[in-house]
Amino acid sequence: MTLLPNLSALDLFVPAEGPQGRISLVGAGPGAADLLTLRALRVLQTCDMVLFDRLIEPEVLELVNPKAEQMFVGKEVGACAWPQEAINQLMVAMAQTGKHVVRLKSGDPSIFGRADEERAAALAAGIAVEIIPGITAASAAAATLGQSLTSRGLSDRVVFATGTCREGDTAPDIAALLQPGTSVALYMATRTAEDLRRQLLEAGFAADMAVQVVASASKPGEAVLHAQIGHLPEQMHAAKISHPAIIFLRAPKKVSRETAAVALTSAVAG
Amino acid sequence: MTLLPNLSALDLFVPAEGPQGRISLVGAGPGAADLLTLRALRVLQTCDMVLFDRLIEPEVLELVNPKAEQMFVGKEVGACAWPQEAINQLMVAMAQTGKHVVRLKSGDPSIFGRADEERAAALAAGIAVEIIPGITAASAAAATLGQSLTSRGLSDRVVFATGTCREGDTAPDIAALLQPGTSVALYMATRTAEDLRRQLLEAGFAADMAVQVVASASKPGEAVLHAQIGHLPEQMHAAKISHPAIIFLRAPKKVSRETAAVALTSAVAG
Repeated sequence: MTLLPNLSALDLFVPAEGPQGRISLVGAGPGAADLLTLRALRVLQTCDMVLFDRLIEPEVLELVNPKAEQMFVGKEVGACAWPQEAINQLMVAMAQTGKHVVRLKSGDPSIFGRADEERAAALAAGIAVEIIPGITAASAAAATLGQSLTSRGLSDRVVFATGTCREGDTAPDIAALLQPGTSVALYMATRTAEDLRRQLLEAGFAADMAVQVVASASKPGEAVLHAQIGHLPEQMHAAKISHPAIIFLRAPKKVSRETAAVALTSAVAG
Repeated sequence: MTLLPNLSALDLFVPAEGPQGRISLVGAGPGAADLLTLRALRVLQTCDMVLFDRLIEPEVLELVNPKAEQMFVGKEVGACAWPQEAINQLMVAMAQTGKHVVRLKSGDPSIFGRADEERAAALAAGIAVEIIPGITAASAAAATLGQSLTSRGLSDRVVFATGTCREGDTAPDIAALLQPGTSVALYMATRTAEDLRRQLLEAGFAADMAVQVVASASKPGEAVLHAQIGHLPEQMHAAKISHPAIIFLRAPKKVSRETAAVALTSAVAG
């Protein structure tokens, strides 16, 4: 496995008119190796190179073709993150040497996976690219909970949103998404508990509104928390919920603004 | 394969105190056999019985343990549909004879799959039950399109909704879901094109708003249509889009009410 190679060395790999490789943008699913698809397994076992993220489990990498090079292109805690542009360049450069490059991504490449950016980079360079879908974390977390994302008579739609946003962007208005009949799965939600509580209580949701949290769905450290929105940050802290986690919400009846104000004051006060 | 057996005969299978089997609610994914997960394949190859739906492909059933009984419990065109209650009863009754029963469902059991109802039936009967997640149709369709369900700077959330609803329910308000930054994937959407056009044009969306349709994602009859909302029904008809299909929408800027009225009149007039 190669960590953070010298990017300027990539130029060496770009022949003017070399053999054409190809790129597979592959969803590894939520973590457990046996939640890989057969199609993903086949390309992992036949490819020449795998570029993988931080959330990919070691047991998945053990399935890779032993002759293939494996390269970590994720973000280590405390270390530099690979910029997306650098990943794109590396991926394309390696394919241009004739390699079949697998870009292995946690979950499904089309859901918070930036598959479109990587596909565009490949196509711009004239490299053949395919997307192999994977199981998104919300599906795995729902299976763990035994609670469907949609449920006849209760919720007929589900929203996948992120708990975080880019710096400078407006924070996502989760309360507005919680219309009757709607379930919400918040990805990358470990750091949003405080904001989420404030936002939902201010919007008039009851402090005892049920919230489910699943951390590391399908992975060895999987954890489930049944919480209440009014105590969510404390309950997540006590349960040692860590990244990656998904928070599930389902729209209940709203309480009045007055009740909400009391609930907020009391919850924040402790 | 057994078609529509006599349900009253099921009583024969329920011993007062028999061996306890178990139930796996398994997502088969969108259709292609190689989009099964390794976990799903393992239970298909070791189970005693498979209850499967109409959308399950024959090539998936070919992977089932040859000693396992396969039973169709879906809805045939022009024939009676199995009521959910009958499926629950059959599944539980067979598990109570000591069998490992796989309930094989198209896509992901937790997304429009009624996994929670089947899980509740199993638990009520004291039968062990697991859910094995699968790739939902929207992920496969997005992979086919090469268009992500979320896209940095364009859409930071995706809604999975149905194009249809139960009789007597209010039709889903898709226009209201299409807030800026939101992508919508409409499942079971083949019959909703007329309603959808009317609703979106009335809500002020432009007649040339781009709409993508993917039918039979990952299956032999897969078809892709790049359409415009103002001509969607005609374009779907011309492209012979058939069930199952997913319609993708992404919220653009709204046009004014006046422009909308003109667009609606002109589109409906033909």
